[in-house]
Amino acid sequence: MVDYIADYISNIRQNDVLPSVEPGYLQKLLPDSAPTDSVSFQQTMDQVEKAILPGITHWHHPNFYAFYPTAFSFPSILGSMLSDGFGINGLSWQSSPACTELEVLVLDWMVKAMEMPEKFLSSSENGGGIILSSASEASVMVLLVERNIAINKIQQEQPHLGSGAIVDKMVVYFSKQAHSSVERACKLSLLNYKFVATNDDEAMDVEDLSRIVAEDRKEGLIPLMVILAFGSTSLCAFDSLYEVGKTCLSLDVKCHVDAAYGGASLICPEYRYLLKGVEYVNSFCFNPHKLLKTHFDCSVLWTDNRIAASKTFSECPLYLAHDLESKTSELRNWQISLGRRFRALKLWFVLNMFGMKNLQESIRKHANLAKLFEVKLNQSEIFEVVNNVQFGLVCFRLKGNNEKTRQLLDILKQDHSIFLSPSILEKRDLFFLRLACSAHSTEEDVVKTYNKIYAAAEKLL
Amino acid sequence: MVDYIADYISNIRQNDVLPSVEPGYLQKLLPDSAPTDSVSFQQTMDQVEKAILPGITHWHHPNFYAFYPTAFSFPSILGSMLSDGFGINGLSWQSSPACTELEVLVLDWMVKAMEMPEKFLSSSENGGGIILSSASEASVMVLLVERNIAINKIQQEQPHLGSGAIVDKMVVYFSKQAHSSVERACKLSLLNYKFVATNDDEAMDVEDLSRIVAEDRKEGLIPLMVILAFGSTSLCAFDSLYEVGKTCLSLDVKCHVDAAYGGASLICPEYRYLLKGVEYVNSFCFNPHKLLKTHFDCSVLWTDNRIAASKTFSECPLYLAHDLESKTSELRNWQISLGRRFRALKLWFVLNMFGMKNLQESIRKHANLAKLFEVKLNQSEIFEVVNNVQFGLVCFRLKGNNEKTRQLLDILKQDHSIFLSPSILEKRDLFFLRLACSAHSTEEDVVKTYNKIYAAAEKLL
Repeated sequence: MVDYIADYISNIRQNDVLPSVEPGYLQKLLPDSAPTDSVSFQQTMDQVEKAILPGITHWHHPNFYAFYPTAFSFPSILGSMLSDGFGINGLSWQSSPACTELEVLVLDWMVKAMEMPEKFLSSSENGGGIILSSASEASVMVLLVERNIAINKIQQEQPHLGSGAIVDKMVVYFSKQAHSSVERACKLSLLNYKFVATNDDEAMDVEDLSRIVAEDRKEGLIPLMVILAFGSTSLCAFDSLYEVGKTCLSLDVKCHVDAAYGGASLICPEYRYLLKGVEYVNSFCFNPHKLLKTHFDCSVLWTDNRIAASKTFSECPLYLAHDLESKTSELRNWQISLGRRFRALKLWFVLNMFGMKNLQESIRKHANLAKLFEVKLNQSEIFEVVNNVQFGLVCFRLKGNNEKTRQLLDILKQDHSIFLSPSILEKRDLFFLRLACSAHSTEEDVVKTYNKIYAAAEKLL
Repeated sequence: MVDYIADYISNIRQNDVLPSVEPGYLQKLLPDSAPTDSVSFQQTMDQVEKAILPGITHWHHPNFYAFYPTAFSFPSILGSMLSDGFGINGLSWQSSPACTELEVLVLDWMVKAMEMPEKFLSSSENGGGIILSSASEASVMVLLVERNIAINKIQQEQPHLGSGAIVDKMVVYFSKQAHSSVERACKLSLLNYKFVATNDDEAMDVEDLSRIVAEDRKEGLIPLMVILAFGSTSLCAFDSLYEVGKTCLSLDVKCHVDAAYGGASLICPEYRYLLKGVEYVNSFCFNPHKLLKTHFDCSVLWTDNRIAASKTFSECPLYLAHDLESKTSELRNWQISLGRRFRALKLWFVLNMFGMKNLQESIRKHANLAKLFEVKLNQSEIFEVVNNVQFGLVCFRLKGNNEKTRQLLDILKQDHSIFLSPSILEKRDLFFLRLACSAHSTEEDVVKTYNKIYAAAEKLL
């Protein structure tokens, strides 16, 4: 298996980035029921070659520019293997002390490496971090915790009010740049939400925020939380932690940062200007599984309200109790599931075996590729760049109406050798293409990709 | 790493099952910040030996009888490695068709292997399955989906009613045997819940259920769902799918089965008597990561309402849209997170490389160990068995008051060579010990464990 994986990655350029299978292809290639007798490893791998590989989209192909990258590295695989090798379930400190403690330790390492505020360190009075599956799960958890804190507070004074009736008055605020999972998290949590306007850089307009919150309060609604985008999915826009954070503080509304993609930038000093004001935010989530070479899933959430996060939904049936409970963190209480994998191992292997210097270089390299692509676009007569390219995402379109860019995407789709995803900026009615760089591409790859796109566009025009 | 894992498992008996570290031990052994330069694999493994291994609770030690087992097997590790090797994120069918399609296929395999009703097959009109992280996540998802379907239905007739105000009237029903995560899922979902009485076998009393639901309806409440325990955590009790399922149908209440532990039994024909009435239930969850040799996390959820499950919370931003959408399942919509690992690979490797016959033997072996332990207890004068031992869990105590059994547990705890967890049957005020068998123990291990416990008890008495 080790050889297969090494070969797969070494030879990944031999494949088109996108597969050419049709829905339902797999059931035609594999048996329709589980085998009664064992099938050998070799036979299983033959089926991998025949049936699985043709249906893989190659996320680590140099021409994969869709969505945002998901991380791949050998140190991460080693950590992941070891996690499976121990095969523990970290549902309590006692169920494998190393699982809880390494998670706490590496998240403290990350606080320091990213120069996040000390209030997020495990040694702080009420802060700390946890590894979750995704930024979506983080949004759901911070909303649910704040929702229930607010319910309890109100019910202490008005015990006759139903929880749901109270929640009907709660409102969460974010801009159209927020990830779709934020809207979904509100629906899952039964919370109302409102979109705040954005400025020309697509960052949240704090005057609009203040206005809406004040109006809502006047109408008897309960402003609960603002969720900031820090490297948004559509345009890689950054809300200002300083402006929004300070505004939230003055409005007495909690403030969560969804830095799923953008957060990893903060290991490089040159991006720390984006951190200005982070001391005002209450929680911060970023995904090492995007740019930090740690396999999906590894999403980090820090909060300055650890005690509430772990108490609001805690359950401790007798079979999980242990004698040292008062001295340990029980991370299960901050997440949806009871069971926990030993995910800290893969992040720890990555931080060790690369070291911060190499990880910084990798971040810089991917951002430089974006700059290179932006320069090429700006040198042309036909393209325009839609976003402020601060990090690894370039958003671009053909000048003129949207129809041309849609046609360009249709042409590019027919060729499975490049994979880009489209997006839209509603307020300016701009349809555009997203090129999200990864550390697997070289300058030559990006130039070739540009030339391919340019050639398709020229032909179209 | 492969060698390290093989050695670890081969030599696992050399360790005590429980570690002897104190909270905070790890930060004394490892650096307090991430390394700037890379640390070699060998140095990292030296730290594993020095700092991680001493803090591991050995879940695959033959004397691990706590909680319920979590699965370990080499085929599962191979599948997991390949999943990391491809390193894809299955957030849509297009993002790796094989990821969605293999998941659909192996869950169909399982429906057939367990003789579950055809309404759970992907080829059925409105049924299908998904792999989730845990039974907790499954409970949350089925509750959230039903909650929102019910809200929408009521709001169609009474559009002025707030969602929360409607939810304040909704009630979920289960017995005290339900897992703690079920209670927690209700709190996360903002749903009221009520405990239904149980009979002498700790199965749900359907007369009590009918009575409570009728009363609630009379009071204007909205009975939403009944959640059944199928191999409960405390006592391995089984609610009757037939009796409860039929009752739910007549009461017009949805019915979900949490078979996290017990579900795997159904691959053996001799346990299928427990399935009687399964055609009445609406959804069913079980964890291959407990007894089916597939590493945590791998929890299967089937529902007979696939379309609602995938539509209720679906979000499809433009960047996730693809041309073949109308023909594909988008499993992300049935779960909390957007991202999806390729977990079907490890289950598929397990089903292939063991084959159903060997998996059945493994289930039987673990259940026979429980029978053996039960016989030993029943032959003694001092112990009594608390549960009806139908599967792999034996619940036992010293005859007489609870204090003696508590003292016995305290003595056993001082010795880190056996790991059992306690539980309590509140309605009879019985404190007891749980011995959950695994496929890693032999008859000799179980007899030795019995002798050790007996010796400790004799000394105590």
